[in-house]
Amino acid sequence: MSATGHDASAVRVALLGCGNVGTALVEMIFDPANGREIELSAGVRLQIVGIAVRRPEESRSVRPWFPHDLLTQDAKSLVERDDVDVVVELIGGLDPAQRLVEAALGAGKSVVSGNKALLARVGGELADLASRNGVDLLYEAAVGSAIPIVRPLRESLAGERILRVMGIVNGTTNFILSKMATEGTTYEEALTEAQELGLAEADPSADVEGHDAAAKAAILATLAFGANVVVDDVHREGITAVTQSDVRYAAQLGYVIKPLAVAERVRGGSAISVRVHPAVVPSGHPLASVNGANNAVFIEGEHAGEMMLYGQGAGGSAAASAVLGDLIVAARHLRHGGSTPPASRRVAVDLVPIEKLCSPFYLSMDVIDRPGVLASVAGVMGEHGVSIRWMEQKGLGDEARLIFLTHMADGGAVSDTVAELRKLEVVDRIGAVLRVIGTESSGPSPGA
Amino acid sequence: MSATGHDASAVRVALLGCGNVGTALVEMIFDPANGREIELSAGVRLQIVGIAVRRPEESRSVRPWFPHDLLTQDAKSLVERDDVDVVVELIGGLDPAQRLVEAALGAGKSVVSGNKALLARVGGELADLASRNGVDLLYEAAVGSAIPIVRPLRESLAGERILRVMGIVNGTTNFILSKMATEGTTYEEALTEAQELGLAEADPSADVEGHDAAAKAAILATLAFGANVVVDDVHREGITAVTQSDVRYAAQLGYVIKPLAVAERVRGGSAISVRVHPAVVPSGHPLASVNGANNAVFIEGEHAGEMMLYGQGAGGSAAASAVLGDLIVAARHLRHGGSTPPASRRVAVDLVPIEKLCSPFYLSMDVIDRPGVLASVAGVMGEHGVSIRWMEQKGLGDEARLIFLTHMADGGAVSDTVAELRKLEVVDRIGAVLRVIGTESSGPSPGA
Repeated sequence: MSATGHDASAVRVALLGCGNVGTALVEMIFDPANGREIELSAGVRLQIVGIAVRRPEESRSVRPWFPHDLLTQDAKSLVERDDVDVVVELIGGLDPAQRLVEAALGAGKSVVSGNKALLARVGGELADLASRNGVDLLYEAAVGSAIPIVRPLRESLAGERILRVMGIVNGTTNFILSKMATEGTTYEEALTEAQELGLAEADPSADVEGHDAAAKAAILATLAFGANVVVDDVHREGITAVTQSDVRYAAQLGYVIKPLAVAERVRGGSAISVRVHPAVVPSGHPLASVNGANNAVFIEGEHAGEMMLYGQGAGGSAAASAVLGDLIVAARHLRHGGSTPPASRRVAVDLVPIEKLCSPFYLSMDVIDRPGVLASVAGVMGEHGVSIRWMEQKGLGDEARLIFLTHMADGGAVSDTVAELRKLEVVDRIGAVLRVIGTESSGPSPGA
Repeated sequence: MSATGHDASAVRVALLGCGNVGTALVEMIFDPANGREIELSAGVRLQIVGIAVRRPEESRSVRPWFPHDLLTQDAKSLVERDDVDVVVELIGGLDPAQRLVEAALGAGKSVVSGNKALLARVGGELADLASRNGVDLLYEAAVGSAIPIVRPLRESLAGERILRVMGIVNGTTNFILSKMATEGTTYEEALTEAQELGLAEADPSADVEGHDAAAKAAILATLAFGANVVVDDVHREGITAVTQSDVRYAAQLGYVIKPLAVAERVRGGSAISVRVHPAVVPSGHPLASVNGANNAVFIEGEHAGEMMLYGQGAGGSAAASAVLGDLIVAARHLRHGGSTPPASRRVAVDLVPIEKLCSPFYLSMDVIDRPGVLASVAGVMGEHGVSIRWMEQKGLGDEARLIFLTHMADGGAVSDTVAELRKLEVVDRIGAVLRVIGTESSGPSPGA
């Protein structure tokens, strides 16, 4: 058999979980035309031998070829079956997904997963287990759905020193901030619309508080820097403090507010920063035009320069397409040998705490409209070494709103400034405090 | 040794050609810090054992570690050396590159190449030779430089039915058309600036006549559809007929003119069209904002939806980064087993000739400004079933310029219309005839 030839014996797949993504995956593999196409292009035949679900009677497929006879409630026994070569885990969450994935890897079975929560918590341990057993742990669907992000970072850019990865990796928050920017809606109106469209849960906190994006940031950082970054390493701020007026002022200044996951080398590369927060991005930056529920990851490499991988961030069949791509790779490795390089090289890096991280800042506050107030506010900022690059004052009846863009300032100095400003009797309310991204050359260092 | 472990023996690399890309590659591998990084991340050690160049005395590197002692003029002997595991071909062109690549593959050595001209002509034969010898033929650098495009199409999207690939794959023509759009320059002025910046050759025809993009279109079509598409299958139109007024009128209508390479399924998927031409793109389309010398490939998949891979299209170190990524994959396959799936599955597909291909069209013409002229022009269009969606007339002294956007029309009908219009005494000049892309739902079928 040649290295790229076709092997008649099928690679046998156990599927754990069969919601939207699982159903789409089963349909793609069982569709006769598509199945032949996979066989031709990949040189392997995939055979689903069992599908573990909690409630077999609730299978969502209406296709005549959907294999209802393969449904089982016993995921553990399915994973342990001798005739299973590869396990696809689409259950999500930590339990029982972690136990089942560990059982599969421990038994020498490759695993394909889209489970960002699991990977962001114990991805390093699972990768070690996969490596010790000589099998693959693949998870293209965990970040950006069908957009090729994980494999490009893991393989195409394997020889590249990645300097920074900035992603819009949560479709819900991007939808909300895009809606606020393009249609002038409030945060609450945009959230309600996202909920009506099924883009946000009734309890939206996993999205709007940045938990989902933080898991993806940990995965991206691990891939980009070869360090084992977990979700608890990620500094996290949600988008709930962003108001319609922040979005409008940002637009007037030539910026948009985007929900970013950022993983970057700092201090000349000796340390990294990994964080999730809404950021003020120049409207000419490629990430600024990523709107609606779309996702994108912007990568800066030492040699490769800047690149962006963009597409739909959600949808059952898009995620299924990513899972299928991984499944074909795992199946090819079983039939033709080989393995995917490890995501983490266990490189030890320092994580820089957010208060030590410099950037320009956007901040707005409502103050009592009387002479001398701006001088007091500017005085507090100056005492902390926060240098003002640009300021505008807008009248609001008895009050005035002050909007500032600062030069490069240290996160801790800005926090201290805000804390002290809150104590001033003339300051009524401090609004969003947002980092400005993508304008590194625009300001001098603090104190300059 | 575990599947992802580290093998102490180096993979030995022969480099053919050492211009900008080769020099950058050698520097990346020989830089001690970078070399260790590669070893850690990839689990392989790369060792360059020879560098074939035409004129060893003209080596471009100023690095102290550049291995001048490895330079040789005898490429053939270098490829044949027993201690060479992988050959990197960066000579370009057909001869002697083809002979050397064939010799390497025939001797069971994997090849990494960035040679689009070679791959677009004999890529199918070379892939067969690689497959028969159980080795890799990898060429990420051939399209879009460091932007991961070839591997995502070949692996990440292996389970996906690709419907269309549209790329801005030639930085020079994108620079020229972007310049004309953003700065109002003429084609000639923009070309001169591209030449001054080193983005265009003294003889710019490989770029402006679409030869470079046609080779890349053939490679993209082969990857997307599994058919063996060669450069002679690609319909090719250059950008030389596009004038400043076309760019301006397009902008007034909410469009930009972009140099595209398009490979798409047509007729319900039973046939494909592969072509290179400037196209009129709605300004909201993701490709519309790809400016300057940047490249991007926009992919539409049946399940994965729309995605775009974007970045710098040129530069020696970006291309070297792509070559190095491939080299690491080839080296891992040598040490840990495995192979990359074949690009072409030798699927037989019909190629639809350009005259049978429908789209909306943009066309402009200068006519004598007198009553009845528009009626004559519209009459000729109507006779050929070319239905006008939008028209504007602009006065030019004794003449008038007519600008048309048509509904969906067949390429042949538009050609026939243009040929007949040229014969009209009142038509002085026919300007650019451009396909409109990305607005499929905007017009009815011809004749409707």
